[in-house]
Amino acid sequence: MMKTQDQPNSESSDVSDVAADRVRIFDTTLRDGEQAPGFAMDRRAKLRMAHALEALGVDIIEAGFPQASPDDFAAVAEIARVVRNSTICGLARCQPGDIDTTGRALEAAHHSRIHVFLSTSPLHREHKLGMSKSQVIDTAVAAIERARGLCHEVEFSAEDALRTEPEYLAEVFSAAIAAGATTLNAPDTVGYTTPAEMAELFAYLRQHVKGAERVVFSTHCHDDLGMAVANSLAAVSAGARQVECTINGIGERAGNASLEEIVMALRVRAPHFGVGTRIDSRKLYPTSRLLTQLTGQAVPRNKAIVGDNAFAHESGIHQHGMLKHRGTYEIMRPQDVGIAETKLVLGKHSGRHALRQRLQALGHELDDSLMDGVFARFKALADKKQEIHDEDLEALALGQDPDAAGPWHLVHLNTASHLGGSASASVRLSHDDGREIGEAAIGDGPVDAVLRAFQRATGTALELTQFQVRAVSEGGDAQGQAQLTARHAARDWRGNGVSTDIVEATALAALAIVNRIERQAPQATVAAPQVQGASA
Amino acid sequence: MMKTQDQPNSESSDVSDVAADRVRIFDTTLRDGEQAPGFAMDRRAKLRMAHALEALGVDIIEAGFPQASPDDFAAVAEIARVVRNSTICGLARCQPGDIDTTGRALEAAHHSRIHVFLSTSPLHREHKLGMSKSQVIDTAVAAIERARGLCHEVEFSAEDALRTEPEYLAEVFSAAIAAGATTLNAPDTVGYTTPAEMAELFAYLRQHVKGAERVVFSTHCHDDLGMAVANSLAAVSAGARQVECTINGIGERAGNASLEEIVMALRVRAPHFGVGTRIDSRKLYPTSRLLTQLTGQAVPRNKAIVGDNAFAHESGIHQHGMLKHRGTYEIMRPQDVGIAETKLVLGKHSGRHALRQRLQALGHELDDSLMDGVFARFKALADKKQEIHDEDLEALALGQDPDAAGPWHLVHLNTASHLGGSASASVRLSHDDGREIGEAAIGDGPVDAVLRAFQRATGTALELTQFQVRAVSEGGDAQGQAQLTARHAARDWRGNGVSTDIVEATALAALAIVNRIERQAPQATVAAPQVQGASA
Repeated sequence: MMKTQDQPNSESSDVSDVAADRVRIFDTTLRDGEQAPGFAMDRRAKLRMAHALEALGVDIIEAGFPQASPDDFAAVAEIARVVRNSTICGLARCQPGDIDTTGRALEAAHHSRIHVFLSTSPLHREHKLGMSKSQVIDTAVAAIERARGLCHEVEFSAEDALRTEPEYLAEVFSAAIAAGATTLNAPDTVGYTTPAEMAELFAYLRQHVKGAERVVFSTHCHDDLGMAVANSLAAVSAGARQVECTINGIGERAGNASLEEIVMALRVRAPHFGVGTRIDSRKLYPTSRLLTQLTGQAVPRNKAIVGDNAFAHESGIHQHGMLKHRGTYEIMRPQDVGIAETKLVLGKHSGRHALRQRLQALGHELDDSLMDGVFARFKALADKKQEIHDEDLEALALGQDPDAAGPWHLVHLNTASHLGGSASASVRLSHDDGREIGEAAIGDGPVDAVLRAFQRATGTALELTQFQVRAVSEGGDAQGQAQLTARHAARDWRGNGVSTDIVEATALAALAIVNRIERQAPQATVAAPQVQGASA
Repeated sequence: MMKTQDQPNSESSDVSDVAADRVRIFDTTLRDGEQAPGFAMDRRAKLRMAHALEALGVDIIEAGFPQASPDDFAAVAEIARVVRNSTICGLARCQPGDIDTTGRALEAAHHSRIHVFLSTSPLHREHKLGMSKSQVIDTAVAAIERARGLCHEVEFSAEDALRTEPEYLAEVFSAAIAAGATTLNAPDTVGYTTPAEMAELFAYLRQHVKGAERVVFSTHCHDDLGMAVANSLAAVSAGARQVECTINGIGERAGNASLEEIVMALRVRAPHFGVGTRIDSRKLYPTSRLLTQLTGQAVPRNKAIVGDNAFAHESGIHQHGMLKHRGTYEIMRPQDVGIAETKLVLGKHSGRHALRQRLQALGHELDDSLMDGVFARFKALADKKQEIHDEDLEALALGQDPDAAGPWHLVHLNTASHLGGSASASVRLSHDDGREIGEAAIGDGPVDAVLRAFQRATGTALELTQFQVRAVSEGGDAQGQAQLTARHAARDWRGNGVSTDIVEATALAALAIVNRIERQAPQATVAAPQVQGASA
């Protein structure tokens, strides 16, 4: 269980290649990202995301906060078991219970890291911890020493570092290095800092921390004032060699620094920064799309790198310039980030091979069992819809909720809606145990009526909390993608559905929700962690 | 028509108070923002936005690019007529036709600015303009001199300034000042720059441009690498006293710097920057919400300042700290940006006065005629829905499409939808000319069926291009807000609708579209400008 004392750090890639000028990408989509309201993912979604992050070339995946809940523990343990090419990291407070739990969650990892954190700023020392300066150092040192025996490498974060006295922060970091930490993270916890201040602090730390030359300095920025990316890059310019960031910049409050923006800035301005990453930039766009599907949270059109407009040169003047020389207005090409160069339309005569090829071109590698389901839905769609576009394929690959598959199945659905009156829905559901139940209800609109009919048929109380549906492509026969969130037993449960009929898409989303509840799969909840959300 | 030569600049606030340490907020939501795909606004929407920007305290409103299309001209002219407390600016290329048109559009303005721009970078000089260095200077000078006679003040932008030789840029700006420009803008046109480079350039310009002490230096940043806000603030730290930005950071490609982030960073870090703005920060949130309603483009939950999560302290650790001392995790308060502090629920017994008060608290000042419509819809909603939340009021105030009011009216609507089969819709529409027409159609889902039935009833060909509907609040009786875009006569037309029934909301959106087309109101199109989109 306990790793031998000489084992830690022996395999550490972080320490051995400090000299190599590479920025390590530490992705915290599954921890700081996932804990933000509206971005919760169940275990299956986290696992899918972890595989995508590994394929993207992320150096370290922060997979969760194992002490927060049994679900978090299970997700971290499962990711640690299956992901081989990224270091798997778990977050822990500087408390023995947290550290031991995190060590257990990481046991199966090929390469593991425990990330312990403690506040260092005067405000946090006084009001949150009630600790003196030396108590903070003693607590951090004890935690790092304990963690060292349980994993391959230890990272220490000084929470609210950017509001900490620099001299004291250097003292804390020096003690942390002496205790065995190999990555030192200075997070801008409240998203407060400017790039100039960030550069100043990192330059100071590299000069004044004892053992600085043996460790990796790390930055972790929040976007409350819109400067997370610029702050992270300023830290890199001043010597930081790890950036903590998330896909699409999700995370607490205004989110974390956006991974795709950091990576592409380092690449586009390579001569300026003189340091790169291991990331396969052509997987940035598919990974971003996967996250929006798993969380139901789209990025705006004007999101840098991955938004619909990121490469749209609309104005006549820009288009005119682009035709003469792309460089007049274009600093990177869509294909650099994995946006398909050509549009290809599939149809009812397209085979499984063509479908798989196109999905691969769009960045979706599906195993055979997933491919079976997608191909069946593709054929059903091709019967209804003449032209199947990339957006449709993406919805087929990502949009179908696996929980729509049972134990309840939708046999029959009828809805009707009248101006100024109630809507009605009748449903017939079958259950894997052999039951078949028909029910009907009226409601304020068809979504409400469908939910009420499902409630009656399944006996599951549901209260709608969120609802949206949007067309994934153009045309009257476009598929609609529905996302429903409903409250049941004081928890929010989410379901997705895709169909050319928005009411049917809604019903499939409701079906996924009742199935989730029926199986009482605790990891399927989208409620906040039960014990503690994490910090830093 | 022509202003006398001594009149220009006599009223200029920009020149007289250069010494006063204030950053001028130049909002280009209606120009650089509006020209991005998906963000187009019709004349009525632009006017409503302009009023909101004036109330927000924006110093300069860039209202459009008058030469781009007759619609753009009309919008600028109307805004120039009615907005009194902000300078109204129109964009023009360095061409006599553009400048004269812009001068005419601004004639009625209380305070007017013509904003001329010309590329200065080697790449643009060679590949876009085919001009030598001296030709660029001569062209800029001639344009500035021409513009001076047509407005109160002239701004000159050196397009692609950040990729221009600094010595040459200083030469161009010196000539521009001699010709009469009082604001010199150095845009990061391609979104390429880092804060350190930005600070360096502005420091250089202030030192080397002749007449620098008499003018305002301006920054205009794009977010392609996620650094627009930090770059703008770095320019301010180096002496820029105008920031060009947009609400929600909308704009070409990855958008412009976000106004709300710039303003709040200057405020939250006031001791660091030592310079503020005239913006009433409590109007930031309502103005952001207004823009999302007018464009149908929501901001993500993790958008800084105005996103749903911007002030959500989710994690247990953060909440624990916040209870002990708000400052541990909070650097600004929600009420600072106009997010209502308390939730108040209205119902069927609430009167017009209570409704108006609550709308005001949410930042919506409605005149009596708008208020009449909102109150009528409020009463109708209160009959269906017990509790009316802030989100419902917002949808009532902002979500109803004024074009749903006629000439076509929806008398009757029936839709039905069946699993695996076609959906059907029957509609009855009346027209102000006395006709009443009933029609029915089947389709792929109820949205498609409703659109087809509308087509048959009105004889208007419609092809669905975009569709989304979402619940504005919680509960089965929540209102759904539908946004439809349909193609007709090679143009995209948008409509909105709000109802507790999503199919009815969709039908109301379709009704708005057919009414728009029927009136052939050219300003109602969401197509791109006909002549040229603008640049910089």
